[in-house]
Amino acid sequence: MAAKKKPTRVKARAPRGFVDRNADDLRAQERMLATIRRVYETYGFEPVETPFLEYTDALGKFLPDSDRPNEGVFSLQDDDEEWLSLRYDLTAPLARYVAENFEDLPKPYRSYRAGYVFRNEKPGPGRFRQFMQFDADIVGAPNVSADAEMAMMMADTMEALGIGRGQYVIRVNNRKVLDGVLEAIGLSGDEKAGQRLTVLRALDKHDKFGDEGVRLLLGAGRKDESGDFTKGAELGPEAIDRVMGLFAGSTQGSRLDAIRAAFAGAAMVEEGADELSRIEAASRAAGYGEDRILIDPSVVRGLEYYTGPVFEAELLFDVVNEKGEKVRFGSVGGGGRYDGLVSRFLSTPVPATGFSIGVSRLQAALKNLGRLEGAAATGPIVVTVMDRDRMADYQAMAARLRNALNGPGRPVVPVEVFQGNPKQFGKQLQYADRRGSPVVVIQGGDEKAAGKLQVKDLALGKEMAAGIEDNAEWREARAGQELVDEADLVDAVRRILDARAGRE
Amino acid sequence: MAAKKKPTRVKARAPRGFVDRNADDLRAQERMLATIRRVYETYGFEPVETPFLEYTDALGKFLPDSDRPNEGVFSLQDDDEEWLSLRYDLTAPLARYVAENFEDLPKPYRSYRAGYVFRNEKPGPGRFRQFMQFDADIVGAPNVSADAEMAMMMADTMEALGIGRGQYVIRVNNRKVLDGVLEAIGLSGDEKAGQRLTVLRALDKHDKFGDEGVRLLLGAGRKDESGDFTKGAELGPEAIDRVMGLFAGSTQGSRLDAIRAAFAGAAMVEEGADELSRIEAASRAAGYGEDRILIDPSVVRGLEYYTGPVFEAELLFDVVNEKGEKVRFGSVGGGGRYDGLVSRFLSTPVPATGFSIGVSRLQAALKNLGRLEGAAATGPIVVTVMDRDRMADYQAMAARLRNALNGPGRPVVPVEVFQGNPKQFGKQLQYADRRGSPVVVIQGGDEKAAGKLQVKDLALGKEMAAGIEDNAEWREARAGQELVDEADLVDAVRRILDARAGRE
Repeated sequence: MAAKKKPTRVKARAPRGFVDRNADDLRAQERMLATIRRVYETYGFEPVETPFLEYTDALGKFLPDSDRPNEGVFSLQDDDEEWLSLRYDLTAPLARYVAENFEDLPKPYRSYRAGYVFRNEKPGPGRFRQFMQFDADIVGAPNVSADAEMAMMMADTMEALGIGRGQYVIRVNNRKVLDGVLEAIGLSGDEKAGQRLTVLRALDKHDKFGDEGVRLLLGAGRKDESGDFTKGAELGPEAIDRVMGLFAGSTQGSRLDAIRAAFAGAAMVEEGADELSRIEAASRAAGYGEDRILIDPSVVRGLEYYTGPVFEAELLFDVVNEKGEKVRFGSVGGGGRYDGLVSRFLSTPVPATGFSIGVSRLQAALKNLGRLEGAAATGPIVVTVMDRDRMADYQAMAARLRNALNGPGRPVVPVEVFQGNPKQFGKQLQYADRRGSPVVVIQGGDEKAAGKLQVKDLALGKEMAAGIEDNAEWREARAGQELVDEADLVDAVRRILDARAGRE
Repeated sequence: MAAKKKPTRVKARAPRGFVDRNADDLRAQERMLATIRRVYETYGFEPVETPFLEYTDALGKFLPDSDRPNEGVFSLQDDDEEWLSLRYDLTAPLARYVAENFEDLPKPYRSYRAGYVFRNEKPGPGRFRQFMQFDADIVGAPNVSADAEMAMMMADTMEALGIGRGQYVIRVNNRKVLDGVLEAIGLSGDEKAGQRLTVLRALDKHDKFGDEGVRLLLGAGRKDESGDFTKGAELGPEAIDRVMGLFAGSTQGSRLDAIRAAFAGAAMVEEGADELSRIEAASRAAGYGEDRILIDPSVVRGLEYYTGPVFEAELLFDVVNEKGEKVRFGSVGGGGRYDGLVSRFLSTPVPATGFSIGVSRLQAALKNLGRLEGAAATGPIVVTVMDRDRMADYQAMAARLRNALNGPGRPVVPVEVFQGNPKQFGKQLQYADRRGSPVVVIQGGDEKAAGKLQVKDLALGKEMAAGIEDNAEWREARAGQELVDEADLVDAVRRILDARAGRE
């Protein structure tokens, strides 16, 4: 009945900020996810999955851009008037899950999950509204040894993916250090929340603007090359000097010592620095040097829910950005301790720590490093259609090949019948070529009458065709083509596949 | 800073009709998806993925419940006032994708995708608002040989999953037959759309209510055991007799013949019956008998967009439903030809056919058949914490075991340090037991001083403990526990794992 309707023509386009993903992209991602999953599983983490939608109040408002608390999420109202939101990360839903199933879960509860999250933001270059994260969390782990373990597992993950020593570093800081410093310079209390955020933003720009730039952003503000002015945090010179202590010292020990000295007596800074020292010691004892896990008191992670150690996985090699500039690849994930997130729902405190990998960014990084090559799968063997009344025969040939060439534990050898309009034979060969087909099977009326068929090695045919100049000669040569008995079909195809494997 | 906020206590609950999924469930699904993917790939299909949100106008309104055209989808308005909807199936987004990338895709375009879809409906037992489908489609395939191939691939998929001959059947019908029959009894035109739907719904109930029940639903209506009355399609006795011809005949050939005879001269019925004959011939030629691919002129598929052959994968064994009744398991997927769906966006006709598996229903079926067993992964080796100041040592032990016992291509052996509060040692053993741990490693101060540690075989310990009665005797026995040199850690653990594998 649908055929009778004539709907008005609709424009075919994916929504703004959303993208489709093709086979190469998905296969590369699949391999990458399998590698990450394997590392997480060797650490005793097990999969769990929550729905894409959550009650809005259960998600809470913990977006990185916390100065726009009512934006950033896709929300809709259910038929019972309750608000639902698409998850914007995988941590808030996990907290809900753990709280809802608290009695039934082993504690500590180690879990992982990969999935898309959604941000209702203005899309831009490399900035999507749907993207994938791959998280691991330990809930019910009060000790910083769990944070140390997360940092080590992240380092292992980077290396399992082929990112070598010196190409990445896991930076570790502690929100207690940052919060303690802010408290020490007088920025406590709800009414100073905006100013605190401006300070944290300024610190986060150290990689880009250096000491001088950060000082400007902590003070009156900074004008960039284009003349745009960014308002500063309006700190006085003394406060700026103290905050800049976060960047003092050249080795890890000396950086923590410098902070301890500069903020002597500030209990929260001391507690934070001690926790960092313990994470450092645990990492070194397990053989993770400063080149892999680096204590860095200036690291800022945006999410409001962090309460203790925070991590950032940074890639250190340079890439060319969309403006043609050479830039450091930068962050591909991070996380930290969020002791308050599960207890939003419960009356007991539930300490937790976790890490999130930005899968799409990491995939871009691996592509850049040449670690995603060999992603293309074998193209299909194509059984062509010379006589459309004999489709059943062609399908039977395809089934015979498919069954003979495939088996459990072996790489897939796809086999298909050409299902387009068979009228122009040239289009069938073009299709096979387009799909990267290794072999084409051809059986016209003459061959059928003789109990024969043609198998054509497409790669060899191409090589040979390069030496053939005129069309007549080409047809005569039937480059790469071989006439075989019907009964010999499977063996003939196998010979071509083997020869091809030998050439590669 | 989050620590200072005291948000009001929030109730932890997943939204109505949405569920969380645990490790066993996800691992079983993963294996199932890998099997289906493998079959699809052997037929030359390749993965593609579209976003979760689409412009509402691009999705169109093709929900099964087409009498509620404005319900059924989760929609929200973007900041530029455009409406977005969560996809309700994987076919409508594929049509959008193909139309948007038409010039760049090989034609025919064979693709597959697995993913969650969303229905904004009242949830009920076994009826969720988020569920997974796994689709395969050929776009640009005008011939019914493509439909035959889809049916064969579905049969192969069922068998690859361990569903044996006689436990499933792929039923095939043709919308042209149904539409032709409706036309022949005078139900054409938009104003009869409601009545047509009532007729199709009545036909769909044949399995449940038999000939008599369907006759009532085609006529004045039917009262069920509870006294509830379902209004009928109000057809006259002659029209009812003609429609019931869809169920006439006992073998496939005779059913098609009966329909051809009853609707002689009805061009659309004839065309549909001829297409079914060709699908039947192609299936038989490729070795698929009536027990696997069954031509059944009474099959109804709800989606409005089908224009030709339709399929239904039905499982034939009985299960006990939530009311304790024995019922046939029924449909786990279906599909059909949708020649109009891509051309909604384009000026050229684009023939297409596809199939969708209901992953969750199929998983329930496989569980029922005992085909999902062995899903549990190995529990982690747990390094316990006797002295919390020596966390770094315990983590180093775990790292040593993890690296020694894991390698590419081998099953994962998870190793973890206990990250909960270590105060009560009994809780650590309870945790290990809960996680299905095969081995626990213990090193207290005395052992450390002697350069020793304990490895404990938990399964063996349980067996032995069954024969021990009092607590003192138990402690003495240290059931399943062995004191080894620190240097012997890896070997000792490996011995226990090997012994366990031998016992299984």
